[in-house]
Amino acid sequence: MPPFLISPATHFPTVPPLKPRQSPPKMSTNNHPPTPTHLITSFTNLLWGKSLPPQLLISTVRSSWSTLWHLMMSQLAPSDPSGSYTRPISQFPNPNPHQLTPTTLHLYAALPCPWAHRTLIVRALKGLQHVIPVSIASPGLDGSWEFKDEGIPIGDKLIPTRDKVYGAKTLREVYKMRTGGYDGRCTVPMVWDVVKKEVVCNESYDIIGLLNSGFNDFAQNPDLDLAPPELKERIDEWNRIVYPSINNGVYRCGFAQSQEAYDTAVNELFSALNKIDGHLSGSRYLCGDKLTLADVCLFTTLIRFDLVYNVMFKCTKKKVVEYQNLYGYMRDIYQIPGVAETCDLDAMMDGYYKFLFPLNPGNIRPVMPSASDHEFLLQSHTRESLSTSQQSVQVLAS
Amino acid sequence: MPPFLISPATHFPTVPPLKPRQSPPKMSTNNHPPTPTHLITSFTNLLWGKSLPPQLLISTVRSSWSTLWHLMMSQLAPSDPSGSYTRPISQFPNPNPHQLTPTTLHLYAALPCPWAHRTLIVRALKGLQHVIPVSIASPGLDGSWEFKDEGIPIGDKLIPTRDKVYGAKTLREVYKMRTGGYDGRCTVPMVWDVVKKEVVCNESYDIIGLLNSGFNDFAQNPDLDLAPPELKERIDEWNRIVYPSINNGVYRCGFAQSQEAYDTAVNELFSALNKIDGHLSGSRYLCGDKLTLADVCLFTTLIRFDLVYNVMFKCTKKKVVEYQNLYGYMRDIYQIPGVAETCDLDAMMDGYYKFLFPLNPGNIRPVMPSASDHEFLLQSHTRESLSTSQQSVQVLAS
Repeated sequence: MPPFLISPATHFPTVPPLKPRQSPPKMSTNNHPPTPTHLITSFTNLLWGKSLPPQLLISTVRSSWSTLWHLMMSQLAPSDPSGSYTRPISQFPNPNPHQLTPTTLHLYAALPCPWAHRTLIVRALKGLQHVIPVSIASPGLDGSWEFKDEGIPIGDKLIPTRDKVYGAKTLREVYKMRTGGYDGRCTVPMVWDVVKKEVVCNESYDIIGLLNSGFNDFAQNPDLDLAPPELKERIDEWNRIVYPSINNGVYRCGFAQSQEAYDTAVNELFSALNKIDGHLSGSRYLCGDKLTLADVCLFTTLIRFDLVYNVMFKCTKKKVVEYQNLYGYMRDIYQIPGVAETCDLDAMMDGYYKFLFPLNPGNIRPVMPSASDHEFLLQSHTRESLSTSQQSVQVLAS
Repeated sequence: MPPFLISPATHFPTVPPLKPRQSPPKMSTNNHPPTPTHLITSFTNLLWGKSLPPQLLISTVRSSWSTLWHLMMSQLAPSDPSGSYTRPISQFPNPNPHQLTPTTLHLYAALPCPWAHRTLIVRALKGLQHVIPVSIASPGLDGSWEFKDEGIPIGDKLIPTRDKVYGAKTLREVYKMRTGGYDGRCTVPMVWDVVKKEVVCNESYDIIGLLNSGFNDFAQNPDLDLAPPELKERIDEWNRIVYPSINNGVYRCGFAQSQEAYDTAVNELFSALNKIDGHLSGSRYLCGDKLTLADVCLFTTLIRFDLVYNVMFKCTKKKVVEYQNLYGYMRDIYQIPGVAETCDLDAMMDGYYKFLFPLNPGNIRPVMPSASDHEFLLQSHTRESLSTSQQSVQVLAS
């Protein structure tokens, strides 16, 4: 039987009439832009012309497809000349909490995004839900964040919403309302000042710092400090490992445009995960008994790891479930009151598999890994035994 | 920070000059076929024309890319109208052993292919290496099986070879030598009669039946029967589950061209794996204490599962390493003398990731999963304790 390779002579020379499975988007410009069907027909006429010998045809298709992929990836994800993914820098970092009135702030977030997820977790743990409202955007087919009202949530579970401030259809519309307009990248998370009509910050780490300590007069859990002064240095140390090698590391694997760039990224990723797994054998959280911002940042990547990154970003050396300590650690954090409500596992899978098309051209969404579903994540983790003090984040947050 | 979606306005409208990373194949026909660079330039000129609004551009690219994928998949893998993969049927089944002289036979196989792998295992277990020589083909970039001499093997390890009978460059050349020629699919495994210049069989299950019982006068292990009469019915029962749901099931997942086809295939696959994992908790092999052809057929899919199918074919519910019994069972078979020499883990990964381009457009090969490498596969499996009799295949095969 055939393994997977077809016989060129019998399969390539005849071209079936092409019917795209999705309807092309309706267009209404005056320039008569080409529809996908026309494009594909032109393209395939060139590719599948009978004049080419079958073997050359396959080589041609292969080479063209690969080149198209590189082009699309380079548009989707900026890379340096070696093919390594380079993440663009935010234009709105470092908000000054003293210049802010929390009651005029609004958080824009999205459920698939690990960076936005950080802000939703800290907002929940600090008990700021009633102070800083949130609008949850959804990924749109055209690559932008949209607002779709998805009905009434069950319990405190976060779900996609309309834009609660302006009723905007896309996040771009909101960004563009700032004084002077905006022509940059319209990303989540973003904190918006409703009165000043201004982007306060769209750098996730700066936002969680702000939420952690900037609004304690309004927070339901003002005593919970996820970045206490005595741990600041250790948190920074972990961030220097977790951000480049893990948070951004998985993207460096998935968006690598050369084998070398991928190899470097994947080795760094698993070295860091191995190191952390070893550390967590004797420490409940990264910095000891207390959950910190470093854990929040690690968690939002871990919770997506087996669901998405293992497969789609080729982070294949191990799944989180295969690690002795990381899987229990992830469940420990998932079970902190308030955290599970910020984790929409289906939205995470849909967000990546359905919208990052150059990495999943067939657009098929894989089945959810067993050990990643809600029921499994609620299983006992026995990591309490690693705590040396009585004070745990559960007590503070519940 | 951005999760993964880019700002259309800043990233799409300008087109960088396109440089394919791989040189296009050289062509020498008189028809001036289009080179990949020309094709891509034409295609992207259409796609990235400035007249289109950015959002429509992305929708167009997305839709075109998706349509191209479906077209390529339909050429690569035949599917029925629901998008389900349908495997073509062999033209050369059921050889009659009484009409064959084993010393005139030659086996054509390949290392990535699970169907060819079956034949290499049975040939090794039966001790037929010196009776039926093998030529190991490699996947070629144009989609056909080629012969490349890869030097001298270490020990009994199988490696890609030249065609030892004719010095042919491709398997197609061999198939075409048969009387009356050949215009069909040139697949491995294939047993060739050197004297008659004829394809004896290219149906893997028929070949392993032949190797198991057809040449006992020549085999070093004539007493090893992988399909003894008393187990025949049970072997057939297992095959009726393993073939459609697992062996072909992983391909039905990977080659599914609709979400529905994938969902059906993936549910069947994991139902079957769960059932077998349960059975193996009390049974060393599928049919009890004795290794049979049913185990050989299951093994060649299992050994590729975490390496390839989990990621590339989206068999994501569980890896083999996550199953309580299947992983030990797989190691048990891997450790039978002669089997590891037929398993080239790197060739398996290369064979799928580098040559099945519509499923891996970036052509990047993922890192090998830790629990799938040779050292891990040699770890103790303690499954001997499940055997109730003293007779084991190890004794016979060593």
